[in-house]
Amino acid sequence: MAALEHALNDLAEMFGDRISRSEAMRDHHAHGEGWQPACLPGAVIFAESTQEVSAVLRTCNQHGVPVVAFGGGTSLEGHVTPSEQGISLDLSRMTRIVELNAEDLDCRVEAGVTRHALNAYLRDTGLFFSVDPGGESTLGGMCATRASGTAAVRYGTMRENALGLTVVLADGRIVRTGGRVRKSATGYDLTRLFVGSEGTLGIITEVQLRLHGLPEAIATAVCQFDRLEDAVNTAVTTMQIGLPIGRMELLDEVQMDACIQYSKLTGYEVLPTMFFEFHGAPAAVREQVETMEAIVADNNGKGFMWSNNPEERNELWKARHNVFWACLAYRPHHRGIATDAVVPVSALTELIAGCKHDIEESGLIAPIVGHVGDGNFHTVILVPPEDDGLERALELDRKIVGRALSLGGACSGEHGVGLGKKEFMEREHGRDALDVMRMLKASFDPNNILNPGKMLPDPVN
Amino acid sequence: MAALEHALNDLAEMFGDRISRSEAMRDHHAHGEGWQPACLPGAVIFAESTQEVSAVLRTCNQHGVPVVAFGGGTSLEGHVTPSEQGISLDLSRMTRIVELNAEDLDCRVEAGVTRHALNAYLRDTGLFFSVDPGGESTLGGMCATRASGTAAVRYGTMRENALGLTVVLADGRIVRTGGRVRKSATGYDLTRLFVGSEGTLGIITEVQLRLHGLPEAIATAVCQFDRLEDAVNTAVTTMQIGLPIGRMELLDEVQMDACIQYSKLTGYEVLPTMFFEFHGAPAAVREQVETMEAIVADNNGKGFMWSNNPEERNELWKARHNVFWACLAYRPHHRGIATDAVVPVSALTELIAGCKHDIEESGLIAPIVGHVGDGNFHTVILVPPEDDGLERALELDRKIVGRALSLGGACSGEHGVGLGKKEFMEREHGRDALDVMRMLKASFDPNNILNPGKMLPDPVN
Repeated sequence: MAALEHALNDLAEMFGDRISRSEAMRDHHAHGEGWQPACLPGAVIFAESTQEVSAVLRTCNQHGVPVVAFGGGTSLEGHVTPSEQGISLDLSRMTRIVELNAEDLDCRVEAGVTRHALNAYLRDTGLFFSVDPGGESTLGGMCATRASGTAAVRYGTMRENALGLTVVLADGRIVRTGGRVRKSATGYDLTRLFVGSEGTLGIITEVQLRLHGLPEAIATAVCQFDRLEDAVNTAVTTMQIGLPIGRMELLDEVQMDACIQYSKLTGYEVLPTMFFEFHGAPAAVREQVETMEAIVADNNGKGFMWSNNPEERNELWKARHNVFWACLAYRPHHRGIATDAVVPVSALTELIAGCKHDIEESGLIAPIVGHVGDGNFHTVILVPPEDDGLERALELDRKIVGRALSLGGACSGEHGVGLGKKEFMEREHGRDALDVMRMLKASFDPNNILNPGKMLPDPVN
Repeated sequence: MAALEHALNDLAEMFGDRISRSEAMRDHHAHGEGWQPACLPGAVIFAESTQEVSAVLRTCNQHGVPVVAFGGGTSLEGHVTPSEQGISLDLSRMTRIVELNAEDLDCRVEAGVTRHALNAYLRDTGLFFSVDPGGESTLGGMCATRASGTAAVRYGTMRENALGLTVVLADGRIVRTGGRVRKSATGYDLTRLFVGSEGTLGIITEVQLRLHGLPEAIATAVCQFDRLEDAVNTAVTTMQIGLPIGRMELLDEVQMDACIQYSKLTGYEVLPTMFFEFHGAPAAVREQVETMEAIVADNNGKGFMWSNNPEERNELWKARHNVFWACLAYRPHHRGIATDAVVPVSALTELIAGCKHDIEESGLIAPIVGHVGDGNFHTVILVPPEDDGLERALELDRKIVGRALSLGGACSGEHGVGLGKKEFMEREHGRDALDVMRMLKASFDPNNILNPGKMLPDPVN
């Protein structure tokens, strides 16, 4: 009998019909939202508590059965793709808000809570959770991939917003890391070690999160530019003078064209465009808007419009959040591959200019949208339905990543490594740092059952 | 011949007279500034480059000779205390500013650069480095202990301000971690793993640091309170409404008495006192001052005075930075032990009230000063010159830490663990998390040469 069958036998009593081997359920867990090939898992198990996750890992570790955690299934780089003879451990039923400490601006949630659900729960508290990747992602998955989003420029990524974790190790031990304090100088920073470890060192089952008070005042502004460089330079200047901007997003003219069509935005030209959001006390927000207007004018921006009307704000940010769908609608029958590169902010102008050149050369359509305050931007490469479409798209992606690495950047600002970015890890981190990562992996997971084959490329001799 | 002699033989040619075995030099490296017993190292070696640190560790690893890095020697918890047959590896000559990227608000420095030297170097750039522990600490040591200080409430600790590192591993391998990007989602967070590892996993030789733009406007305010609880509640409210305060320090009436005498502060009563600093654009700063005045009034504060005069500001913050010396002068012939506890902000009122009770009961004098926005505070326990003075002081320290841990806090907010806080590690982190830390230590340093005996208590069976 195969290892998987032994493990499922051992777990049958505890999980009953929460073990599924149906084709449909396995297919639903066979992939994320990225381009990487799918793979049906041997079985899907729905865990409802940390203790149950512990039982699964203890058993799978004994039998050598691979396990990958599954939350919202929104991964873009193949993180959740299971092994054929492995288990997809679905945590999406772990949706309890364990505690809310409004006075300390923190809360503790189970891994399957989505960011939308958390913010709905917080609605009447005057607090919000700031990290906002696209899609219905779960907070466990967001921790595991070190997610960020549009507000990271002001409030940080999951690195800054996860205060502590409950993690189940490969052998089933349950570890609590971090805590509720804002800072601590005691012991190795296990929280930060697990955040971004993509399920390869342990499975996160609970997260202590930092929350933020809803700003007293919020204003939005939009501005358009004839030249993309001017838009990028606007972002660079904003960061350099330390303006505490809430959000700052760049859409190039192609992306803007797609958004105008898809989201029925009126009053905008098909030009590079910046969306800004300002958070703070009323006078501070007014002052920030004025400063931004001056920066924009210095950089040849036009039509600077600002508003503190929540409806106008929602229209704009809804359009921003729907860019992926706008891109897909822009060229019917095309798939979309979302690229992800990050560089020091001063290198952004050069990177985006080079990237535009690469896109043109490729003959593909690839709208650009970016969290430019972080030096992070995406293209959605529209993959033509021809046979060589995917190959051409991936070649373009490789060029963009290569440019980012040459400029001192990283191959991913927020989507993570998974399967899709493994090939760039040695170039980015160097062989010795990668060997340290491999040593960590071997220490935490000697039987290599935790999301095997992800993040770390095999060593080349 | 002992292991140490073999190692020194091997290193003699490379280091020449930069290996010292003189009594005076060994004595200078025998302790930090804490109360823990001193220990003369077998030898002191002055390294001037990462390559030299690598040579020392490779050699010491072969011979099984313990090594502890030494920077400014300002540790308060015995981190730098060497082993008798070991080496104190002095990095204080590694003082190069490797690069400054003003446009990206970052720089790279060697481990021996002090924070004062860095800020002097930055003087004409419009930038500053924000982490400000007391004393002439080096940036390598500040990374190794996850230091923070008075501005952490706004700008973060070394955890947030170290972007990347060069680290030498036990076997001499040189690893670069992190980089210059503001965020990244690629690979394990090795930077955060080494930050706060107290020289037990590797020796940090270079640090990439985040810098901040000097605020356009700065204002200071002071306010006094009849009751300590009202002062603490002022801090708690400030954090809860999310006021972006630059600095917020609490001094109790005893500390204020000491400061008035030592720093010749005039116009203040011997009462619990809060110092505030506001950073930002001019209108934002004015607005923050007004909001703070209202919070203070709600909490029965009196004599709220604010100023944007740099000289008045400097007088006040100089007094704050000199609290330790003020305490020592307050009771001649007493030594001072600085305690360090941190809790969720909402628990601060209860913790400080309990702490005042413990101080009274102990019959000792222990002024309180705190970075209360972080939930972090110190007492300087004045150790009477009697035989049982130290014992009584440490008993009081234990009580304070015990209270912090009971309230969901940590045994150190910024001084670290070293030798002094080891006994609290299991209670704070739990046995399983501590076992994970021990596994990390064993993986990185199988021969246990890197600062052995620090941070991690021996397992109890």
